[in-house]
Amino acid sequence: MSRKITIKEIARRAGVGTTTVSRVLNAQPYVSADKRRRVEEAIAALDYRPSPAARHLRGGASGLLGFLTDDVATTPYAVDIIRGAQDVAWAHGMVLLVADSGGDERFAEAAAQVFRQRAVEGIVYAAMYHRPVQLPRGLKGMPTVLANCFLEDGSAPSVVPDEFYGGYHATKAAIEAGHRRIGFINLWEDASGVTPPFPAIYGRLRGYRQALSDHGIAPDAALLRFSNQIPQENVRHTRELLALEQPPSAIFCGNDKVAMNCYSALAGLGLRVPADVAVIGFDNIAHIAEGLLPALTTMQLPHYAMGKWAAQFLMDQRGQALEPLQVALPCPLVRRESV
Amino acid sequence: MSRKITIKEIARRAGVGTTTVSRVLNAQPYVSADKRRRVEEAIAALDYRPSPAARHLRGGASGLLGFLTDDVATTPYAVDIIRGAQDVAWAHGMVLLVADSGGDERFAEAAAQVFRQRAVEGIVYAAMYHRPVQLPRGLKGMPTVLANCFLEDGSAPSVVPDEFYGGYHATKAAIEAGHRRIGFINLWEDASGVTPPFPAIYGRLRGYRQALSDHGIAPDAALLRFSNQIPQENVRHTRELLALEQPPSAIFCGNDKVAMNCYSALAGLGLRVPADVAVIGFDNIAHIAEGLLPALTTMQLPHYAMGKWAAQFLMDQRGQALEPLQVALPCPLVRRESV
Repeated sequence: MSRKITIKEIARRAGVGTTTVSRVLNAQPYVSADKRRRVEEAIAALDYRPSPAARHLRGGASGLLGFLTDDVATTPYAVDIIRGAQDVAWAHGMVLLVADSGGDERFAEAAAQVFRQRAVEGIVYAAMYHRPVQLPRGLKGMPTVLANCFLEDGSAPSVVPDEFYGGYHATKAAIEAGHRRIGFINLWEDASGVTPPFPAIYGRLRGYRQALSDHGIAPDAALLRFSNQIPQENVRHTRELLALEQPPSAIFCGNDKVAMNCYSALAGLGLRVPADVAVIGFDNIAHIAEGLLPALTTMQLPHYAMGKWAAQFLMDQRGQALEPLQVALPCPLVRRESV
Repeated sequence: MSRKITIKEIARRAGVGTTTVSRVLNAQPYVSADKRRRVEEAIAALDYRPSPAARHLRGGASGLLGFLTDDVATTPYAVDIIRGAQDVAWAHGMVLLVADSGGDERFAEAAAQVFRQRAVEGIVYAAMYHRPVQLPRGLKGMPTVLANCFLEDGSAPSVVPDEFYGGYHATKAAIEAGHRRIGFINLWEDASGVTPPFPAIYGRLRGYRQALSDHGIAPDAALLRFSNQIPQENVRHTRELLALEQPPSAIFCGNDKVAMNCYSALAGLGLRVPADVAVIGFDNIAHIAEGLLPALTTMQLPHYAMGKWAAQFLMDQRGQALEPLQVALPCPLVRRESV
């Protein structure tokens, strides 16, 4: 490893004071854009890396952030939430204690207890899919930011995907490609035909409707389906949409797995994607989206960005009571070849 | 939370001494199978959970295990390695410090430094795909177990998937279903046509050949393909296999993504899975394997088991120099509907 670069050297090279460098390193405000840029350039030029241990060794603080999740492992791409949180933590000289409860409430309470005993300086609580949650009781009074989930009463800060944005921009992409009849195989309807109150479902649906409306397209209930996500059912919905007197020329699918089954139903009908029917997914699960032929245009769930935001918020508000901000991050369109 | 259960209560209920309970809790040897069973039953009946913090608070040990990975996030199912390690760690009152280097060597060295400063009691080093690695220099002298990777010189203990086993049992499953002409679209050939020395490639190939040989089937070079894993190429390999004068009636695919493309090539040829051609994958990526129609029969990469083994080995050998055991865990067949 190379010789240790000091903050003084960075300050000299950037032509600023050491306080400014320290502020930039600690992601604090009160630094002009110009000075921030110069400091960042000096950091890059000198190949400076803050020592993740330095803070811990200097002060009495633990230098630990806790990361508690219900079951990220079952929705593997959600692991990017951990990466986002880690990258911010390390940039601030902190390290992550990670605990995955697997949905076991007692494990979550035990983890909360451990976080307290080890004096973690903040906690990111992440869920595997976007929904309201209840925090382990043991976290009471500890600075906690929720990622990919939220409290019904909004009493703690949270960062979630902007489902409305995703639904809106998926639909808009189809409209801009010239489509007017756009089917939507939305997620989830349970056995009793009831749609549960998950933001992914109602948020995307509102986005879909708003995009149609903004472009002067009347909604058609026949084009809207709710799938229980069983592969055969996704195929059935696709076939029934195509059997309509006025079939859709584009299908927006509630997730990439639905899109995968939609593709195979279309192939079975002898229809080509996108020449005959355009398809848009949701989630951007790389294994599926990049593996399908043609590659799937889909919406990105902002897992990495949520993890980063949550940890950054903890850093920014260190030593204060956390403002209960409720933030929604966009689900950007990932253009490939299916629209 | 319920009242704290003591080791004494467990011992009383199991009819053993507290030392025996302690040994079972700490996964130590010298406990008869019968006593171990009685203790485990008492633990379950009393709903006892060892406090992950207790050990840390009792002694001078840090109670920390380090988990360092190169890029588990890009192969999301590998996150199960973390879960496996965590489950063992917590059962021993330890917690995991997780660091994902994203393949950045400097980050890995910084992580090693942090692990040392925080006096982690052991380290699991995990790779995103099975291959030889070099450990960060900073880990020198620290008790480290490799998971899903290994050192060329075998000087540190490692646990990896048994690729031979996977290739053998995938092929055997096809043979037992009555197939004699079994194609194999193996992973990876680089631009120059050279197959890199990854165990997944040569191990599964040896398994495939051995299974054929054990069942009196002569190998046929025309049935063996190497794919660069680009979807179009996977389709091409499938079509060319089916265009052979003696086409295969089953195709073993190097991973589930290859199988996904194989399915769509077969559909394009008007062939049904498994009635016309059986297909077997590798990896058991649930999103793909459960989402395909018919659901894909495939081989499980033992991510969870590797994480568990690595952490358990650290626990078992605590306070000793680690024996450089090289362990390969089976990749079991997951039967679904494609064979």
